Amino acid sequence: MHCVLVDPYATRNAHRLRALGTPWTIDCVSRTDPYDQLTEALGAADAVVAQGWDAAIARCAPDLGLLQLPNTGTEAVDWSAVPERCVVANTYEHEIPVAEFVMLAMLESRIGIRELDRCFRGGDWSMSHRAFGPTHGELAGATLGLIGYGHIGKAVAIRARTFGVNVVAVSRRRPDDASLLDWSGDMQALDAMLPRCDFLVIGCPLTPETRSLIDARRLALLPGHATVINVARGEIIDEAALFAALESGSLAAAALDVWWRYPTETDVGPSPSRFPFDRLPNVLMTPHVSAWTEPMLDRRWNMIAANLDRYERGMPLLNVVERRFLSEVKP
Amino acid sequence: MHCVLVDPYATRNAHRLRALGTPWTIDCVSRTDPYDQLTEALGAADAVVAQGWDAAIARCAPDLGLLQLPNTGTEAVDWSAVPERCVVANTYEHEIPVAEFVMLAMLESRIGIRELDRCFRGGDWSMSHRAFGPTHGELAGATLGLIGYGHIGKAVAIRARTFGVNVVAVSRRRPDDASLLDWSGDMQALDAMLPRCDFLVIGCPLTPETRSLIDARRLALLPGHATVINVARGEIIDEAALFAALESGSLAAAALDVWWRYPTETDVGPSPSRFPFDRLPNVLMTPHVSAWTEPMLDRRWNMIAANLDRYERGMPLLNVVERRFLSEVKP
Repeated sequence: MHCVLVDPYATRNAHRLRALGTPWTIDCVSRTDPYDQLTEALGAADAVVAQGWDAAIARCAPDLGLLQLPNTGTEAVDWSAVPERCVVANTYEHEIPVAEFVMLAMLESRIGIRELDRCFRGGDWSMSHRAFGPTHGELAGATLGLIGYGHIGKAVAIRARTFGVNVVAVSRRRPDDASLLDWSGDMQALDAMLPRCDFLVIGCPLTPETRSLIDARRLALLPGHATVINVARGEIIDEAALFAALESGSLAAAALDVWWRYPTETDVGPSPSRFPFDRLPNVLMTPHVSAWTEPMLDRRWNMIAANLDRYERGMPLLNVVERRFLSEVKP
Repeated sequence: MHCVLVDPYATRNAHRLRALGTPWTIDCVSRTDPYDQLTEALGAADAVVAQGWDAAIARCAPDLGLLQLPNTGTEAVDWSAVPERCVVANTYEHEIPVAEFVMLAMLESRIGIRELDRCFRGGDWSMSHRAFGPTHGELAGATLGLIGYGHIGKAVAIRARTFGVNVVAVSRRRPDDASLLDWSGDMQALDAMLPRCDFLVIGCPLTPETRSLIDARRLALLPGHATVINVARGEIIDEAALFAALESGSLAAAALDVWWRYPTETDVGPSPSRFPFDRLPNVLMTPHVSAWTEPMLDRRWNMIAANLDRYERGMPLLNVVERRFLSEVKP
């Protein structure tokens, strides 16, 4: 059996797949390789591991059986270019580091070590309890609202609950296990959930329904002291509305790991937004790193090797993406 | 019944006690008040709430029945000046924010939001997974060693376990419930525990036995990648040895909320150490704030009101400090 890895996000991890001793032959290609070469490599592939799929690459692999994404989001897949009989599977395994990042962002929003460390390094004791400085907050007793209750939502809920946090959630599918939740509802219940949220964590896929889901009207439904944490996709929040709310102080804080603009081949260092979030002190800014750990990559490639093995044996595949829950194609 | 609050750490919270509707009369004094005034106020006191006790103030209250500390540490109590029949009680209720601070410090040591935020605000995408930047770590699978398994240790263990952290502990008393621990031992087992610790959290009282407990020899027993977190008392760690280990890199990181030097009346802004920890990038520095929250103060004064009520009714008091576990007198 033959597997082709396409583009750096996959090919840089070929060593992980090989280290697992898979009997599959493994080939690495780049979308920019000559067309003949691509056709030869992909035409012989039983499975392809690639983050995205489009008509150009689909022409090289008309009989593909398995498109395995080495990541979670499916925005880069043009579903009209995926052969009918081709199964598409994605990977998760990012829920541990993403949940750790979310807990860090929630704790930081209550405690503020960035500011404490900065002031104290400068010799300032005025924040100390010895100087009866300003108190900070506690997570205990807060209410966390989750948008999406998949892998990330559950991993966050497990951790948040031991801090005495009340966890509520809206999701498009009914939670298969709601025992960690104090309340849950479908996406139509979002507006009812927002006023209860001290923290709002966005952990759902980007779809036509979730694009700009958090707009000015919904931001205004949050309590003024709330913190918004986005570890999903930037476009789920209306960029202009979020900036305005944070700048005016009508929303207390945000921790943003995902953005509206990303580096491209022609612009390697774009501003991550049309708006100067970097001027706002009430934003924690990180460059889409919440999941970015070695153990996450190890777990993902373990899962990919397991799926190749299942495919070869004709067993049911893991993490098959259901076309009825298709994410939108990137514009 | 009459209660006297001594010094700002107590008197600033008189409103909390009054708001609880205690039937006790409440008086506030300062150690710097005229001797006659102090003697009159304290001589009539059934109970005193004060952070410290010494011979000078003891002379004003020879028949005191209850000395209630509004805090946990007893270093400021000169036990030889406490009348034989006087009961001393302390307060906890800081374990929630301290455990939250410890989890934040552990997460930050693995993820590094201070550095990520700083770089990304400067327009640097090189840390992003999109640029295949450096990966960060996960808490999951790490081993946390606790020195002390009292209120703080337990609160940390409860939270750390849901992150998939293995928790081990040494303590002077056998844990009454070791179900949260993967391993535990007495203080003599410390040297055996240290090589296992990815994180070492110090949460024990300062006593003659724990002063400079973590010295150069014991720091060298930790793995080089370990992070030391101190939320107890600075003097439990040898200042020079810790600085040397962090500066040389033989110890990866530290999060220090407690210090060797504090503001005094004559020096309101001392350097917190003889050594320039502020020059070390691998230290998270905070000015003794881990417990400093309004809910903590509310819980403490609720407990103090409950103890005054118990004292009046002749019921067993909460949090009586056992003299056989005396902390040392501050030099």
